[in-house]
Amino acid sequence: MKFCSHCGSKVQLRVPDGDNRDRYVCVDCDTIHYQNPRVVTGCLAAWEDKVLLCRRAIEPRSGYWTLPAGFMENGESVHEAAMRETLEEANARIELQGLYTLFNLPHANQVFIIYRGRLLDLDYSPGVESLEVGLFREDEIPWQDIAFSMVEETLRLYFRERDNGGFETHTRTIVRISKEPRRYRIETP
Amino acid sequence: MKFCSHCGSKVQLRVPDGDNRDRYVCVDCDTIHYQNPRVVTGCLAAWEDKVLLCRRAIEPRSGYWTLPAGFMENGESVHEAAMRETLEEANARIELQGLYTLFNLPHANQVFIIYRGRLLDLDYSPGVESLEVGLFREDEIPWQDIAFSMVEETLRLYFRERDNGGFETHTRTIVRISKEPRRYRIETP
Repeated sequence: MKFCSHCGSKVQLRVPDGDNRDRYVCVDCDTIHYQNPRVVTGCLAAWEDKVLLCRRAIEPRSGYWTLPAGFMENGESVHEAAMRETLEEANARIELQGLYTLFNLPHANQVFIIYRGRLLDLDYSPGVESLEVGLFREDEIPWQDIAFSMVEETLRLYFRERDNGGFETHTRTIVRISKEPRRYRIETP
Repeated sequence: MKFCSHCGSKVQLRVPDGDNRDRYVCVDCDTIHYQNPRVVTGCLAAWEDKVLLCRRAIEPRSGYWTLPAGFMENGESVHEAAMRETLEEANARIELQGLYTLFNLPHANQVFIIYRGRLLDLDYSPGVESLEVGLFREDEIPWQDIAFSMVEETLRLYFRERDNGGFETHTRTIVRISKEPRRYRIETP
């Protein structure tokens, strides 16, 4: 951020009065431009003993498998965003069954929220951000080609809890150990 | 938003190629300025049979009672933000016990997340954004002077579940019926 989005003057990074963090503040109109984490949300959608995965057509992690998910938009609820993203990325209609996992990604300034859901029909297909979409049993999951550690963790929790007969809501934090090569540690919470 | 924060040129509201929503797009450098919901988080902190409430010193709802909560910052996790806000607004140290309620506020572009927690000591006091801080038994709660419907709903869920011996994670949507007078409807989810 270099310029004030209200008046077009330059901004400087400083701690405003009464605050304790650096913010971009306009040198002219004094507007404080707060920057906050964004919510990414999606769905683990099941059909019988299978779950719906999408192969990513876009970076990051193009070519790898993920759950349908994306940025929550202004004016919608988290569960509406999860259903919309499932429709956009997999052309799939779902019924949501509950908040399932919440991941903190402090290095990316994101909160990643996954719901459990149920596919309403088999009429799914790749959206523009997916190369392919498919249903996978636990032993068919491409574990080596999962795009993100929070997707792998959500899938592992799901199959374990499904076999044990009850789902809880889980929170985790993804700590980035190194950017290149990609290495992360999963902490609870 | 009137000016591009990258180059200082004017922005216009239009649907970018491949998108389906109006965004602020720079007329000069074509930067798309996405705007997304923000996360507000805090804690329902208990001590024996009492819960910690703060009386707000700032708008909106100055003078009314609330749970300590505030905007999540970049670089932190939701639970870190909840603990930080409890420290800032009530000078209170807590141990978190789990994700408790998640409220969608689509009219405000916010997601409001409350954790359950336990006060570690009685050495609390008002922070700069609070007029007073106190511990309340269920029959002492100032129900007529609670600042926000999601705070009242969280408190009612808490006392009911505490008496029944088990806590679950709940999601709700606050639908604004009218701005003046303030009228809201709570929907599940």
